[in-house]
Amino acid sequence: MLKLQGIYPPIATPFDYDGNIYKSKVRHNVERWNRVGLSGYVVCGSTGESVYLTFEEKLELFGLVAEAAAPEKLLMAGTGVESVRETVALTNKAAEMGYKAAMVRTPHYYKNLLAKGDAQALYFRAVADQSKIPLMIYNWPQATGLDIPADTVALFSEHPNIIAIKESSGNLEKVMTMIRTVKPGFQVLVGSAPTLYPSFMIGAVGAVLAYANAAPYSVVAIWEAFRTREYEAALDWQNRIGAAAALVTAKYGIPGLKYAMDLNGYYGGPPRLPLVPASPEAKQEIEAAFAGLKS
Amino acid sequence: MLKLQGIYPPIATPFDYDGNIYKSKVRHNVERWNRVGLSGYVVCGSTGESVYLTFEEKLELFGLVAEAAAPEKLLMAGTGVESVRETVALTNKAAEMGYKAAMVRTPHYYKNLLAKGDAQALYFRAVADQSKIPLMIYNWPQATGLDIPADTVALFSEHPNIIAIKESSGNLEKVMTMIRTVKPGFQVLVGSAPTLYPSFMIGAVGAVLAYANAAPYSVVAIWEAFRTREYEAALDWQNRIGAAAALVTAKYGIPGLKYAMDLNGYYGGPPRLPLVPASPEAKQEIEAAFAGLKS
Amino acid sequence: MLKLQGIYPPIATPFDYDGNIYKSKVRHNVERWNRVGLSGYVVCGSTGESVYLTFEEKLELFGLVAEAAAPEKLLMAGTGVESVRETVALTNKAAEMGYKAAMVRTPHYYKNLLAKGDAQALYFRAVADQSKIPLMIYNWPQATGLDIPADTVALFSEHPNIIAIKESSGNLEKVMTMIRTVKPGFQVLVGSAPTLYPSFMIGAVGAVLAYANAAPYSVVAIWEAFRTREYEAALDWQNRIGAAAALVTAKYGIPGLKYAMDLNGYYGGPPRLPLVPASPEAKQEIEAAFAGLKS
Amino acid sequence: MLKLQGIYPPIATPFDYDGNIYKSKVRHNVERWNRVGLSGYVVCGSTGESVYLTFEEKLELFGLVAEAAAPEKLLMAGTGVESVRETVALTNKAAEMGYKAAMVRTPHYYKNLLAKGDAQALYFRAVADQSKIPLMIYNWPQATGLDIPADTVALFSEHPNIIAIKESSGNLEKVMTMIRTVKPGFQVLVGSAPTLYPSFMIGAVGAVLAYANAAPYSVVAIWEAFRTREYEAALDWQNRIGAAAALVTAKYGIPGLKYAMDLNGYYGGPPRLPLVPASPEAKQEIEAAFAGLKS
Repeated sequence: MLKLQGIYPPIATPFDYDGNIYKSKVRHNVERWNRVGLSGYVVCGSTGESVYLTFEEKLELFGLVAEAAAPEKLLMAGTGVESVRETVALTNKAAEMGYKAAMVRTPHYYKNLLAKGDAQALYFRAVADQSKIPLMIYNWPQATGLDIPADTVALFSEHPNIIAIKESSGNLEKVMTMIRTVKPGFQVLVGSAPTLYPSFMIGAVGAVLAYANAAPYSVVAIWEAFRTREYEAALDWQNRIGAAAALVTAKYGIPGLKYAMDLNGYYGGPPRLPLVPASPEAKQEIEAAFAGLKS
Repeated sequence: MLKLQGIYPPIATPFDYDGNIYKSKVRHNVERWNRVGLSGYVVCGSTGESVYLTFEEKLELFGLVAEAAAPEKLLMAGTGVESVRETVALTNKAAEMGYKAAMVRTPHYYKNLLAKGDAQALYFRAVADQSKIPLMIYNWPQATGLDIPADTVALFSEHPNIIAIKESSGNLEKVMTMIRTVKPGFQVLVGSAPTLYPSFMIGAVGAVLAYANAAPYSVVAIWEAFRTREYEAALDWQNRIGAAAALVTAKYGIPGLKYAMDLNGYYGGPPRLPLVPASPEAKQEIEAAFAGLKS
Repeated sequence: MLKLQGIYPPIATPFDYDGNIYKSKVRHNVERWNRVGLSGYVVCGSTGESVYLTFEEKLELFGLVAEAAAPEKLLMAGTGVESVRETVALTNKAAEMGYKAAMVRTPHYYKNLLAKGDAQALYFRAVADQSKIPLMIYNWPQATGLDIPADTVALFSEHPNIIAIKESSGNLEKVMTMIRTVKPGFQVLVGSAPTLYPSFMIGAVGAVLAYANAAPYSVVAIWEAFRTREYEAALDWQNRIGAAAALVTAKYGIPGLKYAMDLNGYYGGPPRLPLVPASPEAKQEIEAAFAGLKS
Repeated sequence: MLKLQGIYPPIATPFDYDGNIYKSKVRHNVERWNRVGLSGYVVCGSTGESVYLTFEEKLELFGLVAEAAAPEKLLMAGTGVESVRETVALTNKAAEMGYKAAMVRTPHYYKNLLAKGDAQALYFRAVADQSKIPLMIYNWPQATGLDIPADTVALFSEHPNIIAIKESSGNLEKVMTMIRTVKPGFQVLVGSAPTLYPSFMIGAVGAVLAYANAAPYSVVAIWEAFRTREYEAALDWQNRIGAAAALVTAKYGIPGLKYAMDLNGYYGGPPRLPLVPASPEAKQEIEAAFAGLKS
């Protein structure tokens, strides 16, 4: 069974000022991240602006990151789109390129039909049955407008090729319910930096955090403090990152995160349209919040 | 100025039982629709399962419909995806293939950033500036989880290349507000069959209706009754289609609609996964509701 | 069977600047309304700030309005609170004071338990069984956070002592569905001035409109135009009131409405805390919108 | 400064089978609770069915509980209703009867006006200015449909007579944000049993828990384990109560809780209409979940 412990950044995709993938900056960022205690990388997640990337661009990114990643880093590919067939195709391409797991988002466009647990179950089973690598389900209701129920996840957890969930709702009660009810060995990761420490305290085994693109050291520090039972240190770190994490996720999103990356020695650069670079006011807020948060 | 009056089906995409586009059935359906008083066709809208189609498949469908459509039918291409660049690329391909307008959905994945009117404005202006054919904005909050505000639409209406909106919320108050506040000449179409007749009574000039795939005659009848001031007949038709229209949209969606098409002499066939064919119970309900509604 | 046709204002409650009921102003307002073609009055509805009134104050208002109302005006009492027993007690007091019907709001505080149709059914049946006057159900999901389903209303309509619904959602599709499915004779009134005209066109028999407190003539004009088949005049009136009606309901609520009343020769006065009088900016907007709308 | 540490049940109101307050059972329950390590009692909260109680009944309950409570128990009165004047009146009556603090719910009926932070601020300041005892704000968006923003709470915390919040949303990120941003000394309590342990780990000082009516020992155990740094024991207890707590709050609400009280030696009895006793199926589920959870 593949272990998914620790901290993973869902890596931001570097674009140049024409909006094209900036290949050398992918390498630059990954090489810097290689030096922090991150467990691996998630490529083409929401933070990677995957909804703005073509199929071909996703493959290109998978390749670029695979080349630059240190050998001990676990690689996960964000492959979930609305249709089963395209998700499977992308997953199996990633598998051929050395990716160990696929992160697959809940399908959600036809909400009236897909909100029910059994429609979600059908999708994930159909993808899992045809995928050459195991799946981590990805639930982010703030974007999809649809929250996969905890009891559906418990059902999924029985499938041999579905091994984990990344729960990004920030709903700790749901995280606890899932941990109590999934098949033993099924791994619950979280996707919300502002509740990272309490998530570990109740049994989450890891986290995929947009924030980790810009200031990975601070979230790795929470993970390490938790593992060594330094709970006061963990809470202290958590409180230090709280405002910064909220700014580069809920409040200013990817443009804010990319600016924080620029501040901290990574290449953030511009997002793709219709996203636009952070405003001067946003930048000022972000600078203040990230002062003192090591990259 | 392109006139978009009357009834348009956002055509369902025929798939064979392997999930591939069933080309001969595209022709079959269009040729049948050619005989009813529809004003034209919208290709690759939500009802066309566009979120399950690749870029290449969309182009293929544009071509197939263009070939089969009667010469007087106005062709609109559903081209909106999340990124500006891909939306523009698809729109201009459609323009080359003879499409007269593009229907462009509100971008919505990064809701925290895109819910505001100015973010929507930026997207639509960027697309409109680069498009060779005029745009009809497409608002369907039930799927996107985001409702474009009426005052943003009033702003858009000033752009020379944004000529219409398809408002599918079913919110008549919003429809009235838009009609009162947009630039003269900007066209408000609706996308909700259950409120079709009152929408015409308050000034909507046309409609793009999923339901029209299966029983176009009945909605064309409402349009014609309205135009000839036969208001009692219009209301009578409206009440006759009410239950049927609700079944093949909100309740059973595309699978229900495709079954109703099968009943009425069109090819509906299976949807793409994760959508699944209507259940036996759904089929029974649909049969009962469509009895007597001419194709 | 009691007929509830035409336009009813849910009358605003006049308070003096100490926050006490201003009795002489109740009489002043009612005597003015008596001269317009209103069908009657609803006392202690949401617009009457009923949630800020004690049981005793409600009785006092019932009495004051009953005294001042012209004899042909039909009187309805807003009596719905969360508990069955208090709702029944208030309803039967109103019955003794000459009120012909009670308007009863959907109970909603314990949403997890009350959102289901059968919980609503139990409440309304329990109240109706014990009430000496017939009930009009009152659905305003924008305040209650709970929308009573159309099929539950169809069930209610069978009860001999539930004769009508005031549907304030503004959802015309739901209004049509109810009209199609309720027991013949059950009366559907609406509570949304911005969609008044299309509501009549699809079969609503009347309306209870906050807006009618300030400018009753204009909504009575829509009703009369509809009844005499002057549809263009009806739509024209509808468009003239659209902006004003939105201001004194959704946008500025009771404080805005009370200011519009002050403008038009009625006593509006201050609302009870925590509501506060309209701001200077709001007042300016309201003045502009009501210019030319006769009282 | 009044300290509000530890666990408080918002006590359920005992009714007899005619729906009247069952005085002897109030005494019975309180005397049993006196023997567990609860910090005090909250009377006439949501769990006490306060929305179904008259002003006079609330006073009666305040009196009954004050008589029966052990002298070391801190008494809080649930006094919040929609209007400022009635909330103040009830609060000051409670103060005269020996209550040490008032729990005041966010006003919410006119959501379009009250959802903003400044409207909430006005209400709480107006109440706090006139109250003879300090206030604990009470936020339960699942019932009110309105969530008081964290930055508004930070503003409130400056008022000398607003000393605490009971945050029942279950949103741990918000709890952390409040703890980081309120005035030092302002106390954050939570109202959600399923996330009790992680709430303590991030700095909540106490909890007001419906669940504590039925099985107080288990939540006092979490509190004690936390205080003595027995974190594994705390998590273990948390996991043991998870399913039971969800059943008697979100899933079956007050009727479920009252049945669990009946099981555990307290008097639960029937709720007031429109709430109805738990169904046989609900009872079975509750029995299974509470087996082994000491009263």
